[in-house]
Amino acid sequence: MAVSIAVDAMGGDNAPEAVVAGAAAAAGPGLQILLTGRPEQLGALLAEHRPGGVVRVIPAEDWITMEEGSLASWRRPRSSVAVACQLVRRGQAAAVVSAGSTGGIVATARLRLRALPGVTRPGLAAVLPTSPKPTILIDAGAIADPKPEMLVLFAQLGAAYAEIAHAISEPRVGLLTIGAEPGKGNKLARRAYELLQADPPHGGSPIRFEGNVEGSDLMAGRVDVVVTDGFAGNIALKAIEGAAGFAAGELRAALLGSVTARLGSVLQRRALRDLAARVDRETYGGAALLGMEGTVVVAHGAATAKGVAAACRLAADLARGQITDRIRERLGPGRAVHFRRRT
Amino acid sequence: MAVSIAVDAMGGDNAPEAVVAGAAAAAGPGLQILLTGRPEQLGALLAEHRPGGVVRVIPAEDWITMEEGSLASWRRPRSSVAVACQLVRRGQAAAVVSAGSTGGIVATARLRLRALPGVTRPGLAAVLPTSPKPTILIDAGAIADPKPEMLVLFAQLGAAYAEIAHAISEPRVGLLTIGAEPGKGNKLARRAYELLQADPPHGGSPIRFEGNVEGSDLMAGRVDVVVTDGFAGNIALKAIEGAAGFAAGELRAALLGSVTARLGSVLQRRALRDLAARVDRETYGGAALLGMEGTVVVAHGAATAKGVAAACRLAADLARGQITDRIRERLGPGRAVHFRRRT
Repeated sequence: MAVSIAVDAMGGDNAPEAVVAGAAAAAGPGLQILLTGRPEQLGALLAEHRPGGVVRVIPAEDWITMEEGSLASWRRPRSSVAVACQLVRRGQAAAVVSAGSTGGIVATARLRLRALPGVTRPGLAAVLPTSPKPTILIDAGAIADPKPEMLVLFAQLGAAYAEIAHAISEPRVGLLTIGAEPGKGNKLARRAYELLQADPPHGGSPIRFEGNVEGSDLMAGRVDVVVTDGFAGNIALKAIEGAAGFAAGELRAALLGSVTARLGSVLQRRALRDLAARVDRETYGGAALLGMEGTVVVAHGAATAKGVAAACRLAADLARGQITDRIRERLGPGRAVHFRRRT
Repeated sequence: MAVSIAVDAMGGDNAPEAVVAGAAAAAGPGLQILLTGRPEQLGALLAEHRPGGVVRVIPAEDWITMEEGSLASWRRPRSSVAVACQLVRRGQAAAVVSAGSTGGIVATARLRLRALPGVTRPGLAAVLPTSPKPTILIDAGAIADPKPEMLVLFAQLGAAYAEIAHAISEPRVGLLTIGAEPGKGNKLARRAYELLQADPPHGGSPIRFEGNVEGSDLMAGRVDVVVTDGFAGNIALKAIEGAAGFAAGELRAALLGSVTARLGSVLQRRALRDLAARVDRETYGGAALLGMEGTVVVAHGAATAKGVAAACRLAADLARGQITDRIRERLGPGRAVHFRRRT
């Protein structure tokens, strides 16, 4: 199935150069790219790369900087990410990719895209590279103070993602908290536990709830989807990235510490390169904002061309898998229908 | 300075064997150990080890299991950890060490030990092995839903710890949140930011507040003390431990993956052993519950004899450094004096 992805060419630390290069690399027979940003600049950059498929430039003269937060979504209605969202709204693109600031992207998407029925807030789903299958962490930072009911919604969004992107049927869902026993955690987590154990509201799909998981379980692959609030989720995700970077640095120092160790490391160079590729977050594309009409993939702010290309492929995979339809199914007929039946 | 440390011999996955062995190893000329637990069992175990100093057994016929939570502190007034706290209360020991469940230890300490003036809730301080100096993370799980004011208190407790245990003058304090700019985070973090920027209340020591830090900064050594709520703090700490374990496992697999890599790893064995020792949490002793009359060191539940010995040494170091006096100084004359002056 051929899909069109709208790519915010002006968002990210390395924009627009790395974004154009990545989008050009991702474009191909089944994947058309619509680049939003300053036409002359993007045209010049595109001439340097040789896209493998159709790449069109859609003019957007404004953009949100990395320092701007959610308010910029109101101030800049013609920003490159707003124009990308409008392409989805008008049916010209199936999904959006941006490496801009998460706050700005989430706020713009909420303003410009329609929420799916039953979705009070979209959730940001990040992928942890566990074995044998990846683990989805949701919410990774879209809302810092959610209501407990939103964690049930995030469980449905995350389950739909696991089904579509990782081909997992009946994904296992865990609640991130402190302490393994029921009733452990803060007020939000304790209430969310009760709600996740109960039947899903309004005829939604059953959630295969496996109970509490702790921070130490995140990289253990115990469940397929971990639900949490955006504050704890973002801190956990970045703590893991920081710890992985720390371990890699320590290792490098240890390997280069002595002559014999140095000799050994030459022999192991390839094994270490393979490992680095596995834990490299750029190969995973980025976090997906779920629950809107059209998925928004938030690439890392420091994404290189490789990271942007991976984000485009992730967005295309989710669109081809019709994740919005799957989310609609999982959430069920919804409150609106419920009300209509009662009157 | 000679100190007495009360050690809960019945707490932890490997109790009492590993606890007795660790306590016996830690005992020495300047460090007396008071072991609380079942006398016959502890006496028999002590006969197997050769303590380097005085180890006395204080009878306690009850104990809190690893599965029990905070309520057990009420149900079991004669538990081994309660008896250890009573030894501190009576002035017979300067600090407590336990490898039992964190919830049970914190609740028992709050019930049995007096809080220092101005301390509304004790905070649990964990140590992250950053370079060149370690970083303190507080609260690592003592209270899941703190008030914003408590994060200012935790900043003072953590600063006292950094001064005493890591010889850092004017420790830099950061607030764990999502997003680097002021005003980012959940409601609690946003309010705590305002309070940390203001003058400390009631004549407390100035806090050298460096602003927000993110999850990715935890292992970067950007600040000396990171303050956060016990929910996010515990999740972050365990996420880091889990990620370090994951990286080590992946590395082992990569190193054993090919013949040349295997050959290399033989040459590097010592470098890797050094690295493992550096990131091994057992060498750091455990988390310290601060803010009570007498520090309580919470060793890892799975602590071996080595971990228990490190916890005893940490407790002794904090007691010798007179951390409770330092905390008293940092918190200042307190609200009570303030009131008296006004009337």
